[in-house]
Amino acid sequence: MAVYTEISDEALGNFIAAYDLGTLLACKGIAEGVENSNYFLSTDHGNFILTLYEKRVHESDLPFFLSLLSHVSAKGIPCPMPVIGRDGEAIRALAGRPAAIFAFLSGVSVKRPSPAQCAEVGGALAKLHLATADFTCERENALSLSGWRAIAHKLGKDADPITPGLSRLIADEIDALSGLWPKNLAAGVIHADLFPDNVFFLGATLSGVIDFYFACNDFYAYDIAVCLNAWCFEGDGSFNITKARAMIGRYRTLRPLSDDELAALPVLARGSALRFLLTRAHDWIFRDQQALVRLKDPMEYVGKLRFHQAVRDAAAYGL
Amino acid sequence: MAVYTEISDEALGNFIAAYDLGTLLACKGIAEGVENSNYFLSTDHGNFILTLYEKRVHESDLPFFLSLLSHVSAKGIPCPMPVIGRDGEAIRALAGRPAAIFAFLSGVSVKRPSPAQCAEVGGALAKLHLATADFTCERENALSLSGWRAIAHKLGKDADPITPGLSRLIADEIDALSGLWPKNLAAGVIHADLFPDNVFFLGATLSGVIDFYFACNDFYAYDIAVCLNAWCFEGDGSFNITKARAMIGRYRTLRPLSDDELAALPVLARGSALRFLLTRAHDWIFRDQQALVRLKDPMEYVGKLRFHQAVRDAAAYGL
Repeated sequence: MAVYTEISDEALGNFIAAYDLGTLLACKGIAEGVENSNYFLSTDHGNFILTLYEKRVHESDLPFFLSLLSHVSAKGIPCPMPVIGRDGEAIRALAGRPAAIFAFLSGVSVKRPSPAQCAEVGGALAKLHLATADFTCERENALSLSGWRAIAHKLGKDADPITPGLSRLIADEIDALSGLWPKNLAAGVIHADLFPDNVFFLGATLSGVIDFYFACNDFYAYDIAVCLNAWCFEGDGSFNITKARAMIGRYRTLRPLSDDELAALPVLARGSALRFLLTRAHDWIFRDQQALVRLKDPMEYVGKLRFHQAVRDAAAYGL
Repeated sequence: MAVYTEISDEALGNFIAAYDLGTLLACKGIAEGVENSNYFLSTDHGNFILTLYEKRVHESDLPFFLSLLSHVSAKGIPCPMPVIGRDGEAIRALAGRPAAIFAFLSGVSVKRPSPAQCAEVGGALAKLHLATADFTCERENALSLSGWRAIAHKLGKDADPITPGLSRLIADEIDALSGLWPKNLAAGVIHADLFPDNVFFLGATLSGVIDFYFACNDFYAYDIAVCLNAWCFEGDGSFNITKARAMIGRYRTLRPLSDDELAALPVLARGSALRFLLTRAHDWIFRDQQALVRLKDPMEYVGKLRFHQAVRDAAAYGL
C-alpha cells in the first residue's frame, strides 16, 4: 500500500474538469497498489479509481499499460478500464505526475485463497494470455535474468544481514538459472505480478484483475510460475498441491500447456521466486524511511526458492 | 492517515453479515482519520465507512461517541451516522477491536480553505453546539490543563531536540494558563478537533463533519479557539483575519457570543495551540516506527502559540 502524493484542491478540480464525469463527490487515498498512489473517486456519474504514477513506473511505459488495459477490458477481462478525457487522452498530469482515471471494479481481494479461487485465477490468467495474442505493443521484461543480475550486483553483501549467506545463494541461483532458462516457449503479454492483492472476488467468482504495471512480454508459463508462488503456498511456507492443481487445471482447459512448458515449470518457478526475493530484498535494504509503505518480507521467497530448487518435475505441482 | 489493522476475509464476512447491508462489493483501507483504521465499504445497499478503533480511543468512550453521532445526525448535522446491526447494536468486535459502520458522507476536505468555507465551518460549529444542548451524556476533556501537565511531564527535556528551549516554553505556558484559564463560560459538548481534514465540502457548501473522537464537554468558545488555529493561519504561519472574521461572524449569527467568551478567546487560543503542540510533540518523540502514519509538525503550533501570546484582545481576530 502507498499514498505518496498530496493533491491540492485546485489541481484536483482542474483535473476532474478534463473529463465528462460530472460533479466530484469524494476523493480518498486508498491503501491499494504498491507502485502508485491510488484514490477512490466518487462523482455523480459513479465510482472511479484515480491513479498517480510515482517514480517506479516509467512514464514512457504508460501508453503500453493503458492500451493493454483498454484492449483486455474490451475483450471482457474484468480489469481497470481507462476513462478517456474530453481531449481523447487517458493520461494527463496531476500534482506533477502522470495520472489516469479508471472505472471502479467491485470485489475484495482475499488473503487466504481457497482452491476454488485458485482455479478462478488460473482461468483468468489463461483468458488474459488468449486476449493479448493480437495485442501488438511490446514491453521487455525488465525483471528477467539480466535485470536480476543488475539487482544482485546492487545488493552485493548488503543482502547478508537479511539472512546469512543470502548474497551467495542469489549469485549461485543466477548462475544456475542462466544455464537452465528455457529459450523457445510460447510467449506473449503476461501480467507478471498476479498476487492475491491484485485480484478481486465476489464470493467464489473472480471480479477483477488489477495492477498491470509489471506487464511485459515473456513466456506464458512464467506467468503461471509467478502464480504458483503467489497463490499456492500456505502462511507456514508449505506448498498446497490441491491449489496448484486447481489453478493450473483450470488454466489448461482454456489454454493447453505443451510438454516443454510443463517441463520448464520448476525452473520458471525458481526464477519467479528469485525475482520477488530480489525486489523485496532491494526494497528492504534501500527503503525510504519517509514512505508510508508496509514492506514485504524477502525471507518468504527464500523459502519458496528452496522449495522449487528441490523439485524434480511438474509432478511436484500436482500435474 | 492510518491503516493499522489487517482484517481476514472470514472475519470481514462475518462482521458484515451482522448488518442488513446486502452483499459486500468492495472494502478498501482509506487514508482518513489519525486515531483509527478506516475502510471504504461498498455493498449493494450503497457506500459506507467501516471504522476499527485502535488503542488511542478508549473502548469505554465509544458509547458516548456513537450516541453523540446518532444525536447530531438526527438533528441534521451532516456527520457519520452509525449503522445499527440486526441485534440493535452499533458497536461489535472485528479483528480483535471494537468496530462500527457509518453512512458514507460525500464531499472532499480542503487543504487551503477559502473565507467562504471558514464561514461554513463557523456555522456548522454553532449548529453543533446548539444541537448538543439537550444531549445528556458527558465526557471530560482529557486534553485540558491537567492533561497538558501530564503530557508535559512525560515529554520533559525530550521536547528540546524539536527546538531549543521548548520544554521551558511549555512549562511557562502551562503556569501562565493555569492562572488565566476561564472558569464560568458557556459549556457543553464540543468537537475539539475540527481541523480541515475533518470537514468535507461540496464546492462552497459544507457537506460533512467527521472524526468526533476528541468530542467532550468543555467551553463552546474553546471549540472556536481550536478552529481559529486550525482554519485561519496560512501555510507561511501568518494569521488571516478575513477568515477568522468570516468564521466567527457566521457562528455568532446562530449562537451569539457573550462578552466573557470574547474576552477569553486569546487565552483559549493559547490553550488550544498548546494542546496541539503537546500532542504533536508527544507523537513525534514517541512515534511507532512501524505505523504507517505521516506525523504532523509540532513547530507549526509553536508559531501559533507565540502569535496568541502576543494578542491583547479579540480585536486581533477581527472581532
